[in-house]
Amino acid sequence: MLYRNEKFTSLWENKSKPYPQINIIDQTLLPFVFSIIKLDSSDKAIESIKNMNLRGAPLIGVAGAYAVYFAVLESKSHKDERILREKIKEISEARPTAVNLEWAVNKTFDYSQTFSGIDAQINAALECSRAIRQDEINNSLNIGLNGVEFIEDIYSRTCKPVNILTHCNAGWLATIDYGTALAPIYVAQERNIPVRLWIDETRPRNQGSKLTAWEAYHQKLDYKLISDNAGGQLMRDGKIDMVIVGADRIASNGDVANKVGTYLKALAAKDNDIPFYVAAPKSTFDFNIESGNDIIIETRSDSEIFYIDAFINGEYSKVPIALENSPTENIGFDVTPSRLVSNIITEYGNIYPNAQDITKLLK
Amino acid sequence: MLYRNEKFTSLWENKSKPYPQINIIDQTLLPFVFSIIKLDSSDKAIESIKNMNLRGAPLIGVAGAYAVYFAVLESKSHKDERILREKIKEISEARPTAVNLEWAVNKTFDYSQTFSGIDAQINAALECSRAIRQDEINNSLNIGLNGVEFIEDIYSRTCKPVNILTHCNAGWLATIDYGTALAPIYVAQERNIPVRLWIDETRPRNQGSKLTAWEAYHQKLDYKLISDNAGGQLMRDGKIDMVIVGADRIASNGDVANKVGTYLKALAAKDNDIPFYVAAPKSTFDFNIESGNDIIIETRSDSEIFYIDAFINGEYSKVPIALENSPTENIGFDVTPSRLVSNIITEYGNIYPNAQDITKLLK
Repeated sequence: MLYRNEKFTSLWENKSKPYPQINIIDQTLLPFVFSIIKLDSSDKAIESIKNMNLRGAPLIGVAGAYAVYFAVLESKSHKDERILREKIKEISEARPTAVNLEWAVNKTFDYSQTFSGIDAQINAALECSRAIRQDEINNSLNIGLNGVEFIEDIYSRTCKPVNILTHCNAGWLATIDYGTALAPIYVAQERNIPVRLWIDETRPRNQGSKLTAWEAYHQKLDYKLISDNAGGQLMRDGKIDMVIVGADRIASNGDVANKVGTYLKALAAKDNDIPFYVAAPKSTFDFNIESGNDIIIETRSDSEIFYIDAFINGEYSKVPIALENSPTENIGFDVTPSRLVSNIITEYGNIYPNAQDITKLLK
Repeated sequence: MLYRNEKFTSLWENKSKPYPQINIIDQTLLPFVFSIIKLDSSDKAIESIKNMNLRGAPLIGVAGAYAVYFAVLESKSHKDERILREKIKEISEARPTAVNLEWAVNKTFDYSQTFSGIDAQINAALECSRAIRQDEINNSLNIGLNGVEFIEDIYSRTCKPVNILTHCNAGWLATIDYGTALAPIYVAQERNIPVRLWIDETRPRNQGSKLTAWEAYHQKLDYKLISDNAGGQLMRDGKIDMVIVGADRIASNGDVANKVGTYLKALAAKDNDIPFYVAAPKSTFDFNIESGNDIIIETRSDSEIFYIDAFINGEYSKVPIALENSPTENIGFDVTPSRLVSNIITEYGNIYPNAQDITKLLK
């Protein structure tokens, strides 16, 4: 998608010879600083995953695959299989909660090991990483093509700009291109359907006001940035036509775990007869989990509540914004029961959130 | 209530002779700096209302009454009735949305003018200000005594600490003592009923994390500070027993306008069968307004979304936390329909939120 009118993805190969390296956008510095980080080793890739220079489950998976490629490449010099296998394990564990990471790492490494000879293995790891990256792009585009139907439907009835509320960042920065929740909106824009995106700030990490607003601004979307508290009244006032959010994990019955605050918007949408959509690739579904009640909710650092990353004199500083050392309970996610979800938008089609329909389309 | 184990109210007379002056706590500096401002003239009182050194409708009303007393006192020197009446008007208009302000100003000035002779008028204005202040304290205490019944009821059934969620600041800083939403909690504490207060941060102005957390800390309450987004999941997890909030305006049918975000918590309470209480004095009811749909929602400065008051090197600075100059829609309040409100706690008793019961008790 666009940054200063130039096309970008969140991770791409550069032209270094003989072995390509990768570039990423440093997401910890957005929206105030646009900086590209070159990843040319497995250690650098691991570090960038750990430091959250890149985030979003699909993007983390792709970065993990390329990290495996670097690890295989590095084994050409050290020639020590034990070191290589330890490095693969280290990549897998760089972020504990990202399911995609382990999957992509294993897939890339296992595929490379089906070849004999180091050069063939390097090449196989590189090709596998490229394929995973391309798959993510295709998934996002297909989610966009499936989800845009709901936007087109409203537009065909109202002939007015379609007002869409989103929470957190589920755009191209979280995937490779397009995104999940934002993909239908970008496709609508390509089709000249007028949309206005309402972006929740998304406390406490402000992924909405920092990342989604940045995407929207550079994509020249019509957008509004709002506090997380405002969405309910905006729905009461008839200013929102639909809600689209991403998902971190979806249970077999269609219950959705997503960034904390999602559930409150789903309740408000229901109370105002506004459709509430969840956009997520198949990899987000966890068929080992029956309902949302079984999803474990991650608790994060208290300091996210007391301090905020503010941009002062050209750099980021953590500054206090609340009574420090107050006891907190900083849960990162919440669960939206499937009864509040109108449809789940996937790369395979749109599904009603119930066990039967989910199984039929995806299993 | 308590600050460093010493009893305080939010506004009190000092012992200056021959005419008492008043002291207030500078609420713009909390929680990082505790500073007392001496108000000794009508201009200083007006300035402190305008700059939000004090806030909360009941407190603004009391400060307005004392400002009238200063204005009458000043007229002893300048002896110009025109100047006096202009000053009274200026006090009335220091904050346009606070209904209590105009009411308290008119009451104090009108009462003083029933006396003849400047010394009698000064004395009357002072006595009237004192009475208004004492009435606010009594109202808060009575709200506390009425509301504590709901807390006691839960405690008698569970014999476990009662977990109460609140939004924004409706404590003693917003009134003179006790507060509205917090009054039942402070009364429960006095009666040794174990309570835990869950405090919403309350973006964008963070009155929860700055003011309510400060009150709770110094009152030695068991409390937790949370992001506005977290309350829904905490209710799903069974961690909240009841919600108590204040109100800015209540329509004849019981619809409640309060700090933006209140409606979302009311929805979550309903979805989880948790009682949702609104605590407010009679002066908050607007019998000229039939339903919440007729309440005009104030839109505030965009900059509240982009910047935050952070405490850096011993002073407050506005620091950027989002993509600056993004379009926003910063509504300050929302409306919670009466169907989501279990009871309204007033100084006259607890009322079911419907036109008939409200009229019967209050009109």
